[in-house]
Amino acid sequence: MRPPPASPPLSLPPLALPAFEPGWVWLAGAGPGDPGLLTLHVVNALAQADVVVHDALVGPEILGFARTGAVLEYAGKRGHKTSIKQSEICARLVQLARRGKRVLRLKGGDPLVFGRGGEEALALVGAGVPFRILPGISAGVGGLAYAGIPVTHRTTNSAVTFITGHDARGQLPRDLDWQALAKGAPVLVVYMGLRHLPEIVERLLAGGRNPAEPLAVVSDASLPTQAVLETTLGRAAADVAAAGLAAPALIVIGEVVRLRGAMDWVGALSGRILVAEPEAGAAVLQG
Amino acid sequence: MRPPPASPPLSLPPLALPAFEPGWVWLAGAGPGDPGLLTLHVVNALAQADVVVHDALVGPEILGFARTGAVLEYAGKRGHKTSIKQSEICARLVQLARRGKRVLRLKGGDPLVFGRGGEEALALVGAGVPFRILPGISAGVGGLAYAGIPVTHRTTNSAVTFITGHDARGQLPRDLDWQALAKGAPVLVVYMGLRHLPEIVERLLAGGRNPAEPLAVVSDASLPTQAVLETTLGRAAADVAAAGLAAPALIVIGEVVRLRGAMDWVGALSGRILVAEPEAGAAVLQG
Repeated sequence: MRPPPASPPLSLPPLALPAFEPGWVWLAGAGPGDPGLLTLHVVNALAQADVVVHDALVGPEILGFARTGAVLEYAGKRGHKTSIKQSEICARLVQLARRGKRVLRLKGGDPLVFGRGGEEALALVGAGVPFRILPGISAGVGGLAYAGIPVTHRTTNSAVTFITGHDARGQLPRDLDWQALAKGAPVLVVYMGLRHLPEIVERLLAGGRNPAEPLAVVSDASLPTQAVLETTLGRAAADVAAAGLAAPALIVIGEVVRLRGAMDWVGALSGRILVAEPEAGAAVLQG
Repeated sequence: MRPPPASPPLSLPPLALPAFEPGWVWLAGAGPGDPGLLTLHVVNALAQADVVVHDALVGPEILGFARTGAVLEYAGKRGHKTSIKQSEICARLVQLARRGKRVLRLKGGDPLVFGRGGEEALALVGAGVPFRILPGISAGVGGLAYAGIPVTHRTTNSAVTFITGHDARGQLPRDLDWQALAKGAPVLVVYMGLRHLPEIVERLLAGGRNPAEPLAVVSDASLPTQAVLETTLGRAAADVAAAGLAAPALIVIGEVVRLRGAMDWVGALSGRILVAEPEAGAAVLQG
């Protein structure tokens, strides 16, 4: 299938978006990666910010939306690498605001879904710095949509649970009842769980989940480099190790993964034939 | 506090967004209500669509982004009122596509989070109609952000569960293990649960949740008409009935509700004083 042509340049109808006042911090989410998933509020923020304090998951195309002259400041944390501490990021946001800057704190996904936006907001409140929150598309919803996997489906699940695969120390969170999580929502989405996948699988199997249950790992969701591994809960650890998938990646567990055979619209853009009643296949890695 | 002034008109940097080809259906989410939460993909879709098949939660300001000459077709379903059946909506999307229209199916929130986007995608695949999925900001994340409630917070919860409060028949879903849901994620977000709130509370208390646990109901999230009721699990049913809150509303249960005292940035725009270490208060309804 030929790739669809690009649309004419987009012009926006009039819309009253807020002015970014000096001394404010806006805590914003840039979505999973595709710049088309930016919200108008975030585009408006990038057009006015003096400083953009961004993490590693915000790509160059999105940062290219910043106004000419804006300072781009990297404040990333990736996995267990030693990097900027959260307390330092909070202090930096306060410092920039007190200098009268328009400070955009821009993260991948949504700032309040395992994004530590709450901690930053509390630091700002404590320092008397005014702020807004600009939500973003969370990767566990919108990113999985690009893999053709719906997090809910009427005949499959009336609930979905989002879990983070590592806590502030880089460990699997200890405050979770995995037995209950396994028996609760029929669909589980694990953020940042690649490194602890064997342990996650073990706990879910111990909690009664079926080893034949479909599982997918989606890396670089929504980007041209997106890769999707379809496997099962029982085979996941071995298949992921063999495929060599890298973070950032989402893990999704549940019958909704089977729907990818019908709903992989990104694959269809490149010629994949979709079928209305898909079966889960063998482990397949698709770029 | 004076309301912040509006920003200068927004112009977009060049970005290759897809052309909407005749005979295609794009399944899209418009977010919780604030037009500023539209994504660039959805704005691009509205600028090109021939027909916009929308539900009741997509407001006039958002529909105003549709190109001149676009046909706006209402296909809403609200609560248990007799209205258009899902099968009729699916058939209509196929019919319009076969007539060579550019068909935008636009829903509130995200089409794959209790939005039945999967069912519509399957109908399209079955009929051989090509489609894309354009994610939106789900109300349970981005809408709650406008209430100053983060769905995750590092010291509070490493997991969050989203639940729909009614199934296709308008009943509380029967396929859920409420005992496990109660013991699983420390934060629960219930969509469309207002009508079954007493039953939901009963099941969560039976599952071991604490009646003193904070609970908030957010109606019209992200809109100027947003209202937030802060109460507890034990008092929720009585307080909601007394306050007369109307759908659409989200229910959020968990310690994160307490953070609203620090993070109610929308309230702060109207003069609310935020405190860095908030306590849950008595039942309060704030417009």
